[in-house]
Amino acid sequence: MAGNTKERLLDSSGELFRRQGYMGTGVKQILAEAGAPFGSLYHHFPGGKSDLGAETVRRSGFLYGLLLGEFAGPEVELAGGIRAFFAGAAGTLRETDYADACPIATVALEVSSSDEEMRQACADVFNAWIEGGTARFELAGIPHARARTLVIQMLAALEGAFVLSRALRSTEPVELAGEASVASIEAALAA
Amino acid sequence: MAGNTKERLLDSSGELFRRQGYMGTGVKQILAEAGAPFGSLYHHFPGGKSDLGAETVRRSGFLYGLLLGEFAGPEVELAGGIRAFFAGAAGTLRETDYADACPIATVALEVSSSDEEMRQACADVFNAWIEGGTARFELAGIPHARARTLVIQMLAALEGAFVLSRALRSTEPVELAGEASVASIEAALAA
Repeated sequence: MAGNTKERLLDSSGELFRRQGYMGTGVKQILAEAGAPFGSLYHHFPGGKSDLGAETVRRSGFLYGLLLGEFAGPEVELAGGIRAFFAGAAGTLRETDYADACPIATVALEVSSSDEEMRQACADVFNAWIEGGTARFELAGIPHARARTLVIQMLAALEGAFVLSRALRSTEPVELAGEASVASIEAALAA
Repeated sequence: MAGNTKERLLDSSGELFRRQGYMGTGVKQILAEAGAPFGSLYHHFPGGKSDLGAETVRRSGFLYGLLLGEFAGPEVELAGGIRAFFAGAAGTLRETDYADACPIATVALEVSSSDEEMRQACADVFNAWIEGGTARFELAGIPHARARTLVIQMLAALEGAFVLSRALRSTEPVELAGEASVASIEAALAA
């Protein structure tokens, strides 16, 4: 049961961070969403909110990173997989009333200049995505340096498109970012 | 003097939003930074923090939008101007210890699902950037629909690169996003 409470706390904070960020999410709200007693927070996360926050970022980031593998696994043609990944992101935005985009971008912007432990957790997630993506692009025959560049450009396009799409309540930025990323990947595959 | 106090409040909140977002910025901190008395906030912004917040977003967004004209005015070759714009963004990140990036992206992510007035202010700014950028790209001879697509892709790349660069404390994402944007613009100019 202890494990379940910890999981529920991480799930709730992950969902709340995704929608409203870290600064706007209070400990009370996390506990209420998780249906967890107050004492459970400090039992599982002795450092309190920042402790829970850093683990939430690492966990949400890891789970989101798995999505790339689900859409663009080694058995799938790379450009088609990336196209499906962006289409899936656009679909999720529409289905969730533009709430569910990247699980850590809001937090990353909030903490980058103010909370070094949280910033490092976000940096670790982004680095893991860059490493994992680069490995996948290399599997498709793209040389390492080019693969890494393409992955960073694709992640930047995706994250920025989420900023625009959520504010504009339109999937157009995500769709156009996907087109740009797919075009770059196809050019690299043809080279 | 009243005008000066209002300007100082908007300058202070703009600077604080850029570094730490909207949710993490308290009214007391804005007043202290601005050296303004408590009563001045409700005198100039009867709706309080959200009123000041929305005007800060519109003002910061307008001022940041002017930067594109400064780097890539009509007298400048477009691709070279965009290259200089991204180089300037990377330089500012380095000089400000990765604090100063986009003045409204953090706020946009925080409020998009929780504060409709603030979300609309962010959307208005992004739409103004898209319109202004599209007009500039058309001046360079790129057809309207292609120009608009390129501007949205460039803004997405820039915003997402800021997320990555601030968290990673590296200008590499901004530099690579700039390279991708410049390459797309050059391809459109050559077409």
